[in-house]
Amino acid sequence: MRVGIDIGGTTVKIGLVENKKIISSFEIKTKKDTLFKDIKDSIRKYDNIEFIGIGVPGAIKNNYIYRLPNIGIENVDLNKEFSEFNCKIGATNDANRAALGEAIYDNNVKSCYFITLGTGVGGGYIYDGKIVNGASSSAGEIGHTFIDPINNYKCTCGKCGCLETVSSATGIVRLFNDNKGKYKTSIDKENVTTKDIFDAAKEGDELSLYVVNFATRILGIAIANIAATVDPESIIIGGGVSKAGEFLLELVKKYYKEYAFYMQKDKKISLAKLGNSAGMLGARYIEV
Amino acid sequence: MRVGIDIGGTTVKIGLVENKKIISSFEIKTKKDTLFKDIKDSIRKYDNIEFIGIGVPGAIKNNYIYRLPNIGIENVDLNKEFSEFNCKIGATNDANRAALGEAIYDNNVKSCYFITLGTGVGGGYIYDGKIVNGASSSAGEIGHTFIDPINNYKCTCGKCGCLETVSSATGIVRLFNDNKGKYKTSIDKENVTTKDIFDAAKEGDELSLYVVNFATRILGIAIANIAATVDPESIIIGGGVSKAGEFLLELVKKYYKEYAFYMQKDKKISLAKLGNSAGMLGARYIEV
Repeated sequence: MRVGIDIGGTTVKIGLVENKKIISSFEIKTKKDTLFKDIKDSIRKYDNIEFIGIGVPGAIKNNYIYRLPNIGIENVDLNKEFSEFNCKIGATNDANRAALGEAIYDNNVKSCYFITLGTGVGGGYIYDGKIVNGASSSAGEIGHTFIDPINNYKCTCGKCGCLETVSSATGIVRLFNDNKGKYKTSIDKENVTTKDIFDAAKEGDELSLYVVNFATRILGIAIANIAATVDPESIIIGGGVSKAGEFLLELVKKYYKEYAFYMQKDKKISLAKLGNSAGMLGARYIEV
Repeated sequence: MRVGIDIGGTTVKIGLVENKKIISSFEIKTKKDTLFKDIKDSIRKYDNIEFIGIGVPGAIKNNYIYRLPNIGIENVDLNKEFSEFNCKIGATNDANRAALGEAIYDNNVKSCYFITLGTGVGGGYIYDGKIVNGASSSAGEIGHTFIDPINNYKCTCGKCGCLETVSSATGIVRLFNDNKGKYKTSIDKENVTTKDIFDAAKEGDELSLYVVNFATRILGIAIANIAATVDPESIIIGGGVSKAGEFLLELVKKYYKEYAFYMQKDKKISLAKLGNSAGMLGARYIEV
């Protein structure tokens, strides 16, 4: 039996895989202080674990976690952490794994750039049908390209002006809160979500429209820059924020065209099809 | 005999290649209106031309030139143009060819991103030891990433704020002319060159230092963004502007580090070693 563990900022999704099928799955809460203890406790009851696949939202190399900025974890050797199970461990950046899944699912494109808009912004680059890991195991870190010198918000990575600071769920909510007073809004609640903002924008809410346009313009620029840099067949947008669907996609495409190199204006840009959680398990957990 | 033709903004370099060696080479001036006539006239005297390799500074696909913005040429089918020679034609973007040459020369790195700073800014991406052409034959167009919203200069490609508008030779001279009056300078001539500007900056000239720092900061950001996007083993900087040497390189490295993702701070960044013209011939013209 293989175990697939998807560590996210809020929940850890765990799937049990046999014969390339997920036979059951469950979730536990992501708690910084007891994260690995909780995960191990939850899978210890299973016999015959022959492989543990782990997707992490952050920097990882040779099963060693450097930093998961949105959880607050650093320097964890997953081989040691899971040694009691006496099985092979295969850990990668979650976005890379998702990128490969989406590329295969999307008519088997051979080169694509996948961008996941969640708590942070991750990415994965597929070339010639395979994950490009990068010389420092950090290809796909599109969330940390410098792209917004205007707000120049501080990012979890330590730099300022990263794509993640404006086009992630966190970034969109921050843009909303920081621009209250400058634009009218009918949203009157304390903990606004990106769903609230996109829903209100669809109804014409002024502040929400400002925020959604700003975040998608910056994302459109980032995608135009990816295209000019490596010109992949296709760009795929996933993650929680992508649930805003066609409304989000149309805005991103509009801004992309404005900033795209003239030979690349017709680049295929689409929404992830495998979904943000369970749908992706197949791609993530079956092979490493 | 193989003929290698390097079409540049100012000169066309033509090399004759036998047994993978350049046996002779010469240059003609780049004249927009008679460009291909001049090239054909200059090679017609040679017998036994079995292959014509052409490097062009701009957008090309299947031997068809879409646009050479810095020369002002559009829509040329090179197969037709050179049909009288009855031989195979192999044309690519000049920067791609140079990128492969530099990658092979630079300890045979398997992935690198080459940036050439000339009249414009070109680039080439090598992955797994091969040129990445891109889905629209325009991978490597790093010169047309949107990177300077501050000046937001209009680019030859039709967009604004491209890397090429500030970090090319043209861009550096424009920055100099546009900032006269804001900073002191001892340069007092009409047609200033990037060499003048870099030389003066080394001597502490205030305006030149401003210009050189601005152009290299923007280039450092562009390189940090490339690294975050695909994380190549190495970044190589070539083209005429790179003749400013270590002075340029140290500034680019300084700004790169400021904007680089933390796992990529130690990325190898170096100057092209094959030179801007003849040295590159070997790589460019031997194989397509």
